[in-house]
Amino acid sequence: MIRVAVVGAGYWGPNLIRNFAACPDTELVAVCDRDEDRLAKVLRPYPGVDAIDDFDRILMRADIDAVAIATPVHTHAPLGVAALEYGKHVLVEKPLAGSVAEAEQLVHAARQANRVLMVDHTFIFSGPVQKIKQVVDSGEIGDLYFIDSVRINLGMFQHDVNVVWDLAPHDLSILDYLVGRLPRSISAFGACHANEMAGIEDVAYLNLDFSDGLLASFHVNWLSPVKVRHFIIGGSEKSIVYDDLEPTERVKVYDRGITISDDVEAKRGVMVGYRTGDVWSPHIPQVEPLSKMVAHFAESIRENKQPITSGEAGLRVVRILEAAQRSIKAQGGRITIWDDHELRRAA
Amino acid sequence: MIRVAVVGAGYWGPNLIRNFAACPDTELVAVCDRDEDRLAKVLRPYPGVDAIDDFDRILMRADIDAVAIATPVHTHAPLGVAALEYGKHVLVEKPLAGSVAEAEQLVHAARQANRVLMVDHTFIFSGPVQKIKQVVDSGEIGDLYFIDSVRINLGMFQHDVNVVWDLAPHDLSILDYLVGRLPRSISAFGACHANEMAGIEDVAYLNLDFSDGLLASFHVNWLSPVKVRHFIIGGSEKSIVYDDLEPTERVKVYDRGITISDDVEAKRGVMVGYRTGDVWSPHIPQVEPLSKMVAHFAESIRENKQPITSGEAGLRVVRILEAAQRSIKAQGGRITIWDDHELRRAA
Amino acid sequence: MIRVAVVGAGYWGPNLIRNFAACPDTELVAVCDRDEDRLAKVLRPYPGVDAIDDFDRILMRADIDAVAIATPVHTHAPLGVAALEYGKHVLVEKPLAGSVAEAEQLVHAARQANRVLMVDHTFIFSGPVQKIKQVVDSGEIGDLYFIDSVRINLGMFQHDVNVVWDLAPHDLSILDYLVGRLPRSISAFGACHANEMAGIEDVAYLNLDFSDGLLASFHVNWLSPVKVRHFIIGGSEKSIVYDDLEPTERVKVYDRGITISDDVEAKRGVMVGYRTGDVWSPHIPQVEPLSKMVAHFAESIRENKQPITSGEAGLRVVRILEAAQRSIKAQGGRITIWDDHELRRAA
Amino acid sequence: MIRVAVVGAGYWGPNLIRNFAACPDTELVAVCDRDEDRLAKVLRPYPGVDAIDDFDRILMRADIDAVAIATPVHTHAPLGVAALEYGKHVLVEKPLAGSVAEAEQLVHAARQANRVLMVDHTFIFSGPVQKIKQVVDSGEIGDLYFIDSVRINLGMFQHDVNVVWDLAPHDLSILDYLVGRLPRSISAFGACHANEMAGIEDVAYLNLDFSDGLLASFHVNWLSPVKVRHFIIGGSEKSIVYDDLEPTERVKVYDRGITISDDVEAKRGVMVGYRTGDVWSPHIPQVEPLSKMVAHFAESIRENKQPITSGEAGLRVVRILEAAQRSIKAQGGRITIWDDHELRRAA
Repeated sequence: MIRVAVVGAGYWGPNLIRNFAACPDTELVAVCDRDEDRLAKVLRPYPGVDAIDDFDRILMRADIDAVAIATPVHTHAPLGVAALEYGKHVLVEKPLAGSVAEAEQLVHAARQANRVLMVDHTFIFSGPVQKIKQVVDSGEIGDLYFIDSVRINLGMFQHDVNVVWDLAPHDLSILDYLVGRLPRSISAFGACHANEMAGIEDVAYLNLDFSDGLLASFHVNWLSPVKVRHFIIGGSEKSIVYDDLEPTERVKVYDRGITISDDVEAKRGVMVGYRTGDVWSPHIPQVEPLSKMVAHFAESIRENKQPITSGEAGLRVVRILEAAQRSIKAQGGRITIWDDHELRRAA
Repeated sequence: MIRVAVVGAGYWGPNLIRNFAACPDTELVAVCDRDEDRLAKVLRPYPGVDAIDDFDRILMRADIDAVAIATPVHTHAPLGVAALEYGKHVLVEKPLAGSVAEAEQLVHAARQANRVLMVDHTFIFSGPVQKIKQVVDSGEIGDLYFIDSVRINLGMFQHDVNVVWDLAPHDLSILDYLVGRLPRSISAFGACHANEMAGIEDVAYLNLDFSDGLLASFHVNWLSPVKVRHFIIGGSEKSIVYDDLEPTERVKVYDRGITISDDVEAKRGVMVGYRTGDVWSPHIPQVEPLSKMVAHFAESIRENKQPITSGEAGLRVVRILEAAQRSIKAQGGRITIWDDHELRRAA
Repeated sequence: MIRVAVVGAGYWGPNLIRNFAACPDTELVAVCDRDEDRLAKVLRPYPGVDAIDDFDRILMRADIDAVAIATPVHTHAPLGVAALEYGKHVLVEKPLAGSVAEAEQLVHAARQANRVLMVDHTFIFSGPVQKIKQVVDSGEIGDLYFIDSVRINLGMFQHDVNVVWDLAPHDLSILDYLVGRLPRSISAFGACHANEMAGIEDVAYLNLDFSDGLLASFHVNWLSPVKVRHFIIGGSEKSIVYDDLEPTERVKVYDRGITISDDVEAKRGVMVGYRTGDVWSPHIPQVEPLSKMVAHFAESIRENKQPITSGEAGLRVVRILEAAQRSIKAQGGRITIWDDHELRRAA
Repeated sequence: MIRVAVVGAGYWGPNLIRNFAACPDTELVAVCDRDEDRLAKVLRPYPGVDAIDDFDRILMRADIDAVAIATPVHTHAPLGVAALEYGKHVLVEKPLAGSVAEAEQLVHAARQANRVLMVDHTFIFSGPVQKIKQVVDSGEIGDLYFIDSVRINLGMFQHDVNVVWDLAPHDLSILDYLVGRLPRSISAFGACHANEMAGIEDVAYLNLDFSDGLLASFHVNWLSPVKVRHFIIGGSEKSIVYDDLEPTERVKVYDRGITISDDVEAKRGVMVGYRTGDVWSPHIPQVEPLSKMVAHFAESIRENKQPITSGEAGLRVVRILEAAQRSIKAQGGRITIWDDHELRRAA
């Protein structure tokens, strides 16, 4: 039984609290937040859990094995590093940190302390993404041609982060998980409207280049009158569409593509035709991704192994986010994320 | 009665033939194509129309007032300029020409000859776009925040042009018509998969910057397993969604947005909230855009006025297309389309 | 402050418990269930609420003003009548009772005791139904022509009731609320498949006749592979479509219809044409219907008035359900629900 | 080469004309209509086809092998019988005739003359229905539980027939084709609104009973503000949904159902659970059903065999339509269509 403290009882914390309390492999022993009223409210259903308003007291408690951090982004690194140094395993809400430097501190601290560092990329544990991963890994998609992601709706909370840092971690973590290799460069665009003075982007586009023909594009938007959560993976053999708002058939595999025929018209050089086939929508078991995520954290600690959404995965996503941010400020100027040397080493 | 010859009886020509034959203001007198079998076939329902296989004979005929050109893109300028020089009014299938230089030749020739030059930006004459124009011009949208266009499907013909020149003219002409001002620069991305050797892009993204906060993004794609024709206009007061595949409610006006409240939490600076209201889907009369386009061409000739989709409008779209092409080849490098001097002069 | 006890902690009870606990006008003082484990579990977040396993103790407690009954249907009447006789106000989960006779006992007992009897027809308190009621009452729909309701999905719980008693109360209560007059007769059809031996219908169709041209049809189904919740109200001037699964635009008002023109073709007698106009989807505030229902129960008690979903409304729905059941067993034989005498008296 | 005359150049005739002209197995030799202007107009693209305004002249022409009748319903039988008696093969637009007596005359006349009599149940030749037939015949659906068909929209032409005779032939012919056995009885409901004086129903519901648990229900409606073409086939093992308005995935096979488990709770008797699995949307080749229908007519003549949509199939549909009509007039009273003796004989 892993004994866990949740730090931060704001927007996301209660979800972690509920799942750590319910998970058979973990015991929720404490929740930490500076706001005592909020603490009292979220802990009402859990009379046996300690309410703690001082993070240092969490660090001191020897009976706490692991800490789950759901605080503002800029505090992820200082709190996480401290917890790791005190020998705790650490789970961090996405994004792992607010900068590459901070994310690297976390990864380094985890390695030094030989403790598990995991980032809560929740979507990785969802039924649709797990199913898509299976299909992609089976090879039936063929070569990856393009990935197009749209995550837009009317929705802005009072944030210190822009729409890229708020929404894109979901899609970039899915990209990282599915593709399994690194993009070379990014070009990104954004605009600030609702909160122009603060310079917080509410519309943004990210274009990632994988240097092998694969193009990945992401549209994130807080100003859209309609909600869209649409993810296309275009392949040479088959393609996948993942529509997260579709009530039952969220994932569809299309046996469709374009075929190149031999030269039939000398003038035109090639002859391109369609190939259309069946559509298959696999059954996806209904599971709560968060409960799977929490169980995976416990399992990683117990078996002393790297989680799927390891600190390194979190760092890779932050690296893309930071590059996106720089590119937006440079009006779309292309930013190298991983250079050729790094790409070769990673391959 | 305007006497018209259609040049080119391939993919698009028969549509022009049918509409010029049916329009009460025009008389279809001749169709020109080098392929005599094709000519005979398309002219079967029109026994009174001359089949001509030599373009020069069209030029020579004094009884032909106007020429409609539906030939491959690279022939638009030479054929169109010749027709204008022979005193014909000219309608050109989109895009107006294959380069800015050629488009300028056409515009120049029309001005010299004092003849109507019109480009067949068909969508401008469609019910949905006409209705959207009304709504945008009424001012109820407020400031334009973003435009997001997706035009994707599985579809590639054996072209000498890429997906940008094939599909984007539709959306760029709509943009030009609705926004009424010029974008400053573009950054575009593309990839070639199905026809990699020929270097013909089949997936592309265009990002246009209007230097006043308006961001316009276009996704065109021949490799998508699903067909999408979706156009969002995000405004400060209201927003519009135009879904061209929706059978009845193609245009929806959303009374939704984001509001900035006064400072309630000192730490966060601003307070942003939703505003949601009714959705209104105006009735859109069913008209064939092409029949309206053809009638507008006749009217422009009769009244000696600039058509809505004038040569200049066609040139503006070609200017964006050419810049997009250059940016794609420069891996998204930003290309200035209209510099500050030009923008000021145009305003 | 109305002091409430909830009786029954099974499927629906916890929803009532949560809402009575949260409502500012009510105080949840006790929950009654024979299953002590279930009681303990549902009451964990409410340490101050009494767990009671004997319904008689609820009756005896003078500090309990009202009782909310969420037990199996056949127990509604005996429990509800007893509570009313002990001077409690009573809320009953839908359907009000398992037979007309029992529903009449409840209505009679409430009148004798001068206490509020309300049935939990939850949908009546939902945003969409409230908005539709406004539109219908405004008269802009014109005459009601037809009502078509489809409520189907794959879903069967282990019930003692069939699909009609399970699902149709929702739609019949909406019908009763919107139309405001009584149907004369019913013809219903059903079939038992999954549970054939027990004779429990899992597919059924109800056809109600209002003797004034209005036809109301209901399809309820536990065996449908797809989930549909679709309700059309066809009127002479406008029509309404209520799609409960539509994420944002649940209610749409169509300015569409058929017009009868004067005789233009002698042979055919009449000339019928379409009229199509705008579609309007009113903004519907997001409220939890159950919280409104609970507040309305408290208000009805406080102001000693008939609730919207009164015992009489519940009785009317049960009268239709019982007639439907008889008609199904008679293979669709038409059953008079309210005879002409009753209809005249009600009008 | 079968030499064909089309009789009736109104709404449906031009579709037959176009397809008989294009079919490689048939030669369109004449078109007959009393309206000479209409005749001239539809024949413009077919200069070699004779325009004939007198049906008797069609009968007299020995060079005409077959006649396709697309005239008002009440003329189908007299024209068709005459043509058969003159030795022509006959194709009749749906419904085969306006009454069972007339339909029987046609079937009888065809048998006497030893000529092909076929009814144009076009949907039977469509890609989706052909694919569904394959799936149903494969047995993978299991037992048929229910069929639910909705064919509604805003649409009324100036007819002498009501919505049942106009729309239901489509769905009843599909039912007849797929199920392959006869319904025992029908109960039907309808209402007249737009054209109340003429007593022409514009909304109707049909409930067919197959005496073996299969229930088939049909909703046809000319007053619906929204267009729906939805057909569900519920089976014990799998179910099929056919949505004719879905642009690409018209047919879906759902591996979903309900399972009966052993008794786990003595009180409740049975335990029913869901079974959910994959959804499969087979690729359906794009063919024009009419061109297949026309080719099948030619093939049936050439090979002297019964067409799939034989006169008998047309008679079966008319038998259901006539019974529906009587039931509507009897306010839903149940009408036996085929009695037990007939059902046994047919089985």
